Amino acid sequence: MSESGLMKRILEKVMEKVKETKKIGEDDPRRVIHSIKVGLALTIVSLFYYFRPLYDGFGQAGMWAILTVVVVFEFSVGGTISKSVNRGVATLVAAALGVGAEYLADQCGEKGEPIVLGLLVFVLATISTFTRFFPNVKRRYDYGVLIFILTFSLVAVSGARTTEILQLAHQRLSTILIGGATCIIISLSISPVWAGQDLHFLISANIANLAASLQGFGGEFSLSPCDGSGSTVSFKDDKEKSYLQSHKSVLNSKAMEESLANFAWWEPGHGRFKLNHPWKLYLNIGGLVRQCACQIETLSGSCIYINSKSQATSEFQQKVQGACVTMSIESSKALKELATSLKNATFPSSSSSSSSVEIHLHNSKAAADELKNIMEKSSFLPMEVDLEDMMPILVVASLLIDIIKLVEKISVSVNELAHKAG
Amino acid sequence: MSESGLMKRILEKVMEKVKETKKIGEDDPRRVIHSIKVGLALTIVSLFYYFRPLYDGFGQAGMWAILTVVVVFEFSVGGTISKSVNRGVATLVAAALGVGAEYLADQCGEKGEPIVLGLLVFVLATISTFTRFFPNVKRRYDYGVLIFILTFSLVAVSGARTTEILQLAHQRLSTILIGGATCIIISLSISPVWAGQDLHFLISANIANLAASLQGFGGEFSLSPCDGSGSTVSFKDDKEKSYLQSHKSVLNSKAMEESLANFAWWEPGHGRFKLNHPWKLYLNIGGLVRQCACQIETLSGSCIYINSKSQATSEFQQKVQGACVTMSIESSKALKELATSLKNATFPSSSSSSSSVEIHLHNSKAAADELKNIMEKSSFLPMEVDLEDMMPILVVASLLIDIIKLVEKISVSVNELAHKAG
Repeated sequence: MSESGLMKRILEKVMEKVKETKKIGEDDPRRVIHSIKVGLALTIVSLFYYFRPLYDGFGQAGMWAILTVVVVFEFSVGGTISKSVNRGVATLVAAALGVGAEYLADQCGEKGEPIVLGLLVFVLATISTFTRFFPNVKRRYDYGVLIFILTFSLVAVSGARTTEILQLAHQRLSTILIGGATCIIISLSISPVWAGQDLHFLISANIANLAASLQGFGGEFSLSPCDGSGSTVSFKDDKEKSYLQSHKSVLNSKAMEESLANFAWWEPGHGRFKLNHPWKLYLNIGGLVRQCACQIETLSGSCIYINSKSQATSEFQQKVQGACVTMSIESSKALKELATSLKNATFPSSSSSSSSVEIHLHNSKAAADELKNIMEKSSFLPMEVDLEDMMPILVVASLLIDIIKLVEKISVSVNELAHKAG
Repeated sequence: MSESGLMKRILEKVMEKVKETKKIGEDDPRRVIHSIKVGLALTIVSLFYYFRPLYDGFGQAGMWAILTVVVVFEFSVGGTISKSVNRGVATLVAAALGVGAEYLADQCGEKGEPIVLGLLVFVLATISTFTRFFPNVKRRYDYGVLIFILTFSLVAVSGARTTEILQLAHQRLSTILIGGATCIIISLSISPVWAGQDLHFLISANIANLAASLQGFGGEFSLSPCDGSGSTVSFKDDKEKSYLQSHKSVLNSKAMEESLANFAWWEPGHGRFKLNHPWKLYLNIGGLVRQCACQIETLSGSCIYINSKSQATSEFQQKVQGACVTMSIESSKALKELATSLKNATFPSSSSSSSSVEIHLHNSKAAADELKNIMEKSSFLPMEVDLEDMMPILVVASLLIDIIKLVEKISVSVNELAHKAG
């Protein structure tokens, strides 16, 4: 048994891995294409140097082209360009400084040379490493600084003469150029992955996630029994409700958005944004969306915690509940409208969806006003329910009013984006 | 003027940069030490290869030691070990496979060789690149896969004979070993930066941030005029209030926590945690803390939005307000107590601070119960205030009740951690 049992377990493990692999590929087919692109770039550069008649002349230079391709080829066009430019410029600057250091050390005699070189490497490496802690440098030029330290040390310690170094630098730069250019060309020509576009889709997906959560919330809310036997705000185990989870991914998307925006900064104009990508506007919208997700998180949380007592619903509570359902459904529709128009790049302003968003926003605000009306009148009603039972629904109502205000802000920002995209 | 004006502007720019540099260094002096450590490691390795009598024998091998130091030396011990191990193991495996590929290609004759090699490079690079999309691989072995692709391609394309490759591989591995060992030894011996410890301090700082926000909130709340002329929940421009901002940094700390936890996984036992770092527990606490930050964000938001009308306060509202102040101040104290005991590693269970946390939690829960009492009695009171004016304070009260529940959960998790650290 033990042997066949072992085989079975191994087979199960393998099947699991196969399933995982398939899922990762299906989640984003561009991952498969990207892998093939990297394989292609590497094969081209490898064979180029394998066949090159100048192979022996270039010495180890071919190695640098392969190294460049492996290290520089990123998933998005922006990432690839960012690393290529960083690598090229840093190598150039570091090589020039390295030659200078070599010349300086040469003047100090045979005994002084290693001391001067060691000192220079130490000082430059220390200063450069420290600059990597600057937020601006870390965001855009981290890789460049790394390559700068590397190249400077290599050139300074090489012990070669200036003329040799110049020849070496020329070779190395040309191979880096070939490697980087191969990556950029393949990255651009075979189904390019634009970080700017990914940011665009991420923001629209996040808005859609909020809409799904709010819709689920509204639906759940209107289904809760009003026959007098159930509580006002009733939720089953929230883990069963997937739509109450969809806003959670939004809460932690900031790091992702920022890295995409950084890569988008490097990308040439593409698609709708001809000159430069309005990544700052996208980050603004992302911030608002996250704020809204936070409110929704509180909304779902406060309902689950507070709702412990089941009380008969009064006419007043039913009215408030009705207003809450309208508010959440209508603001959800407005968000959904915004998300699809953003996703399809048919910006609200340029199509009929603008008025559609407006209508839903208007409806939700009308429901909020109605709620205020109900509240104001409440002081003249005979109060038969105690405040503790009222609290959950009041909290929900108040949170929904806040959410509508945020949805309005998001709508304004999306419109601003539409103007940019003109 | 133009020339002196230009000089002035340049001088201003320089002064600005100097200030920024000073601030970055003062914010975390370990950054300066880290920079010096990198400089030191690089100088040692550089000079070792500069003076080495075997220099010519090793050829370009010294280069690999420098390259290893530059690329592998990370801020934390865990990061450095992770990259060193990844680099070493990946080079070993890739070199072995590369030799196999070279041997295989050799068997296919002169014409077949480049085809077989190109095919092998393509297939392995494609598959390896795809594995980088697996979350588990990406988290721990991303750098290793990169080095694997690089080394395999280099060895396969080198066109060298198997015996030459074996010699080359031996040299390269030994240089990588020297480079990696230098980094790890320096990283461990000169004021080591433990990612596990950083995670520990980050979580405790986040808890302290929540405490600061809640305390600021409670203070602001109790100061609001109760003489009948002011509103119940009064807030000035929230941007002036720095303590109302301190929870915001917590909201986006997930990426940071996870990266620190990943590095902590690589670190040997240190400090309080002898065998392995309970990074999973820390991530749990981090999640709870973030949930709490979300509630506080809603708390500060809902007060600013809703509070538009100024109404005379009734006796009832004053009572509720009093309970809210007690709840926020007491839960803030409990959090502060938890944060300091966590920071100083005098875990609650092992000192008097445990009872102190308990007392504050008890007080805050008592205030919540009192609030419920007030609410229940409210139905018998003559209701003179309309509900719309009551809403802000009711929402605040409800949110505070939720926050207290989260604080209790955080306290339980911190105690669990204390048992592990025992």
